[in-house]
Amino acid sequence: MTDVINKLCVVGVGLIGGSLARSLRDARYVREIVGYGRSLGNLQQAMELGVIDSAAVSVGEAVRNADMIVLALPVGTMPEILQALAPVLPDAAVMTDVGSVKGSVIAAARAALGSRFAHFVPGHPIAGTEQSGVAASLPDLFVERRVILTPEAETDKSAVDKVRAMWQATGAEVVAMPAAEHDALLAASSHLPHLLAYALVDMLVRRDDHRAVFDCIAGGFRDFTRIAASDPVMWRDICLANRTAILDVLRQYRDDLGDLVQAVERGDGHWLLDTFNRAKHARDALNKKL
Amino acid sequence: MTDVINKLCVVGVGLIGGSLARSLRDARYVREIVGYGRSLGNLQQAMELGVIDSAAVSVGEAVRNADMIVLALPVGTMPEILQALAPVLPDAAVMTDVGSVKGSVIAAARAALGSRFAHFVPGHPIAGTEQSGVAASLPDLFVERRVILTPEAETDKSAVDKVRAMWQATGAEVVAMPAAEHDALLAASSHLPHLLAYALVDMLVRRDDHRAVFDCIAGGFRDFTRIAASDPVMWRDICLANRTAILDVLRQYRDDLGDLVQAVERGDGHWLLDTFNRAKHARDALNKKL
Repeated sequence: MTDVINKLCVVGVGLIGGSLARSLRDARYVREIVGYGRSLGNLQQAMELGVIDSAAVSVGEAVRNADMIVLALPVGTMPEILQALAPVLPDAAVMTDVGSVKGSVIAAARAALGSRFAHFVPGHPIAGTEQSGVAASLPDLFVERRVILTPEAETDKSAVDKVRAMWQATGAEVVAMPAAEHDALLAASSHLPHLLAYALVDMLVRRDDHRAVFDCIAGGFRDFTRIAASDPVMWRDICLANRTAILDVLRQYRDDLGDLVQAVERGDGHWLLDTFNRAKHARDALNKKL
Repeated sequence: MTDVINKLCVVGVGLIGGSLARSLRDARYVREIVGYGRSLGNLQQAMELGVIDSAAVSVGEAVRNADMIVLALPVGTMPEILQALAPVLPDAAVMTDVGSVKGSVIAAARAALGSRFAHFVPGHPIAGTEQSGVAASLPDLFVERRVILTPEAETDKSAVDKVRAMWQATGAEVVAMPAAEHDALLAASSHLPHLLAYALVDMLVRRDDHRAVFDCIAGGFRDFTRIAASDPVMWRDICLANRTAILDVLRQYRDDLGDLVQAVERGDGHWLLDTFNRAKHARDALNKKL
């Protein structure tokens, strides 16, 4: 494997960064892994778990001699880390990120990196759980999952190839699309459902009788609200970073709910059955595909 | 066990009716089980699966000599079956139902049954999956699940005791509360989430790019929308039968979404983080309890 990574630097060794490190190590696709992040306790735990070989105490030390740098941080912290990285980047390093929003990360990278922006390959693995932290990381998290790369016009082709090959080594399927398309698709498929789940649990917990409500739940509610246990900081950042696309789908959904309210108000069984049938049909088809 | 049921009549041998029959048979809590329903093919399947001993071809034959009659049908079909039952009820029979809405079933039972209404114990097991039909029935569906009984002032105490003992034999925890309280709690904990999931999938499938959206989904979306595969007829009936309580929570949720839209519009990270934190805290607590 000529593509093998000599030194991988993972900035943010959490669920995604930790899982990538574990996966590449299992695939023997990397010789050395150094971790860097805000929490020394977390880096210590990552070393104890064997996820990283060493922890760096400065960003300069972290990226020294690295040929691949992966930013696996909440989207809101990207501008700061990119500015810290810019003056210390090794010439040979390719960079990528795992952020759930691509437009805002690209803007931050372009502003911070100057001519080195060509070696930054924006990326997003569509994988994860509602858990966070390195202790929840899994070597097979990306197997048969989709990774979306959103290179810009000036992105270096060989940098894209290196990042694609890295993700393929984890068992992921890699596709490319424009950042704006990614952000619109993810607003609908991921960001909106997370907001709806947070909003539901928050509405229920504010009720005086919320204990009685939570005593009445079954498996459907549990699954429906599982994603409301996701990391609040990460999701606040996503809301702010992908504001326009999220507002599009959130307003559409609010309007659709208005139609649903009216159908229930007028007792329109035909409308309700048509809507539920259409949704069930789509959901059943999805189940078969998965 | 002095409470054991001699002849159980299950009207509607689907997921819930079939699971109750299996469970009571496994617990040796019933001597004979007869099934009745609209579909002969389904009753045939229930016999082949050993869920029922025999299938009746008329409601009169079905309830003859039955000491326990369980109505396990969509809420919308309750008035019709109650009217058919009224003239053929054995003197000793206790009746109950498993409907997700209690107020409408109670009204239909009171109208149809006359003095025998005292022997009708309204009930609702909080259990189920998004699947339906006798083939999906499970003997342990009710283990450690909650069953809510909503007896009225005139409901016979010994009838309530018999129905409670039956559900306890399935491993369920049985509680009692007023029907209006049940309907309000379930509107929040179950009916609203189902409507939100249907509305989301329906909104996405109406997009021109829905295939691309569905290509971008991960585990969170799968779980969030699982309940959108539920039986559309059953859920249309629930919407119509529990209209008032559902409108209360649906309007509240729509208004909450309006607040969320405004918070995203003004980029209010504090508001978003507070809301997400409150929801995550509640959801984590729920997880520990379950």
